[in-house]
Amino acid sequence: MDVDKKDSIASDSSDQVVNPWEVSAKDGGKIDYDKLIDQFGCQRLDASLIDRVQRLTSRQPHVFLRRGVFFAHRDFNEVLDAYERGDKFYLYTGRGPSSEALHLGHLIPFMFTKYLQEAFKVPLVIQLTDDEKCMWKNLSVEESQRLARENAKDIIACGFDVTKTFIFSDFDYVGGAFYKNMVKVAKCVTLNKAMGIFGFSGEDHIGKLSFPPVQACLSVPAVPSFPSSFPHLFPGKDKLRCLIPCAIDQDPYFRMTRDVAPRLGYSKPALIESSFFPALQASGENGKMSASDPNSAIYVTDTAKEIKNKINRYAFSGGQDSIEKHREIGANLEVDIPVKYLSFFLDDDTELEHIKKEYGEGRMLTGEVKKRLTEVLTEMVERHRMARAAVTDEMVDAFMAVRPLPSMFE
Amino acid sequence: MDVDKKDSIASDSSDQVVNPWEVSAKDGGKIDYDKLIDQFGCQRLDASLIDRVQRLTSRQPHVFLRRGVFFAHRDFNEVLDAYERGDKFYLYTGRGPSSEALHLGHLIPFMFTKYLQEAFKVPLVIQLTDDEKCMWKNLSVEESQRLARENAKDIIACGFDVTKTFIFSDFDYVGGAFYKNMVKVAKCVTLNKAMGIFGFSGEDHIGKLSFPPVQACLSVPAVPSFPSSFPHLFPGKDKLRCLIPCAIDQDPYFRMTRDVAPRLGYSKPALIESSFFPALQASGENGKMSASDPNSAIYVTDTAKEIKNKINRYAFSGGQDSIEKHREIGANLEVDIPVKYLSFFLDDDTELEHIKKEYGEGRMLTGEVKKRLTEVLTEMVERHRMARAAVTDEMVDAFMAVRPLPSMFE
Repeated sequence: MDVDKKDSIASDSSDQVVNPWEVSAKDGGKIDYDKLIDQFGCQRLDASLIDRVQRLTSRQPHVFLRRGVFFAHRDFNEVLDAYERGDKFYLYTGRGPSSEALHLGHLIPFMFTKYLQEAFKVPLVIQLTDDEKCMWKNLSVEESQRLARENAKDIIACGFDVTKTFIFSDFDYVGGAFYKNMVKVAKCVTLNKAMGIFGFSGEDHIGKLSFPPVQACLSVPAVPSFPSSFPHLFPGKDKLRCLIPCAIDQDPYFRMTRDVAPRLGYSKPALIESSFFPALQASGENGKMSASDPNSAIYVTDTAKEIKNKINRYAFSGGQDSIEKHREIGANLEVDIPVKYLSFFLDDDTELEHIKKEYGEGRMLTGEVKKRLTEVLTEMVERHRMARAAVTDEMVDAFMAVRPLPSMFE
Repeated sequence: MDVDKKDSIASDSSDQVVNPWEVSAKDGGKIDYDKLIDQFGCQRLDASLIDRVQRLTSRQPHVFLRRGVFFAHRDFNEVLDAYERGDKFYLYTGRGPSSEALHLGHLIPFMFTKYLQEAFKVPLVIQLTDDEKCMWKNLSVEESQRLARENAKDIIACGFDVTKTFIFSDFDYVGGAFYKNMVKVAKCVTLNKAMGIFGFSGEDHIGKLSFPPVQACLSVPAVPSFPSSFPHLFPGKDKLRCLIPCAIDQDPYFRMTRDVAPRLGYSKPALIESSFFPALQASGENGKMSASDPNSAIYVTDTAKEIKNKINRYAFSGGQDSIEKHREIGANLEVDIPVKYLSFFLDDDTELEHIKKEYGEGRMLTGEVKKRLTEVLTEMVERHRMARAAVTDEMVDAFMAVRPLPSMFE
């Protein structure tokens, strides 16, 4: 069975729904990621693959690999096979610039992509889908473009290497080779197929359907997944492979892209996929953070005081109702958000294990764990704030300039 | 009643069907153009308007105006009002480059547009929709682009002024300001509306629906109708009006454009619309020429001998079966193709009237009329062939260069 060609592209099993627009678990419980791997037909990112990454890059795997945040993949092993033979690849990720302030969940793919870029020493393209946000979010063209540049500053603040990174906004970059690939992708996809995958109705803007070839719908991924879309970066390298780090809800996009790729003479892009970063109030890990509720997430613009307050007031605790009961049976780590957040952002494996043991066995209290999380996030947000403040308009221009990358394949 | 906002955008009255994909009259008879004006809600291009054109341009109106080939309009009078006050406008026409060889019907809008450009001394944009043809006609990107350039040579051979004319292909030019207007147009049109107008089904390529914002479907007209789509031509002139010469089957496109225009802050484009150029075999003027039947049309690549043969063998005659009967009752000019063709291309009004009188009253025979038509078309085609042979690749590059136009508003 070709795992990419399942009839139901989006997971619409009655148990859980995971697609770019909806993430919901059975009865409001946890997402079953093992089941999702089966539903989607992707592969588990297992320990042997992580060991292989460590060996090939001669560095400790990123915390998101060690802790299973990135837990699934498609053809990542093939990309590593090629890499081992001396064939480089390029990375592709992106963001829809619908708001000014990013929260921690938004940073995860960029933090991980920065690690991949450094570890594998490969070029990276970052797409800002301002056209899609203009279409779907009822933003003006100008406001979408402004948000794209503001978001680019946050992305650059993650520490990307300007000699290996091309950031582009669709409104700036669509045209030429990129537009030709849009048309080629569009020719491969019937309207019925698109409507089935993405659940459009006839009352939707025609622009929603016009966007697949750009990216909003089907081909957010499709076009930048093909090296010929970037003639200034990859001239004559049409067979160069692309690796896409993303959250697993984006998988339906890329199944479509992988279906189309060989028909256009390109390699299928490989994927490395993460679980979801939970909302502060989440009892478990179901759901994505809600942009409409600022208390559901820590933003990179939050002050130390706001971070402390949010964690203390809103972070769902797995601790017991009374100290006595907590000392007796310990915290339920499965639903505890402070522990969950620490497992994303506390780099020290030993300390994390210590906290989980002490907290899980009732010797550590929720307040103490929240205090540690507050320290970790405050430091991380403060570091981001300082890095972002140092990003000038000239730096944004430099990352977004259409140019060859000098040290692309070192 | 706002004449632009009829519920049925394409004319689907049971009498006759006229839209960009189908032209058919009741019972295979003639298109009733008076009825079409009512159905579409456009205006008649009457004698007083033609007189006004003559006065404003200080030259005899083009034969296509004098003979009623261009017979309908939308807001042409308003464009003339503004022109009289000293406000210029720009012209916009185009072609879908689906084949190498153009026939005489293809030349009509370009011949007329050249006259308008000369008479009003205004800039002109010509869109070659190679992206649309790539999508719909199953041509490769490369072949569509090659055909676009070949067609550009035929268009240039019509005598356009390079200092006032910008020819562009979508694959070359889509991007930037043009792409932003594509997204703005797409936001204004629901999928249901588009499907209703253009009769799409769910099995169509998603690209067909993705194309409205480009142009193939809805916005072939929409985007070039807005001056901001050409920042190198019309900087700061967002209120500049656009006049579009086209055949009346394109009207549904432009009704949609006119509906969208004010919502985006632009003027509605004005239209000046022609009847159809009939096929050689047509008994009347219903139908368009068929690209699949080379004998249904005279091509600009036909030799003198081919022209003569086609006219003699295929041109539908209104003459009588026997000379005796013909001498007695004369030709039926209403269905006679040679007379119809002469009324398009024989510039001399006096001679045309003479032929119609002599032929209609039986003193002139079909063979004589066909001989005169052969002379007229042979000369016209030969003139075109020589002009086209003189068009170099450098000239194509010059017309297609993205540049300001030096003598744009003289």
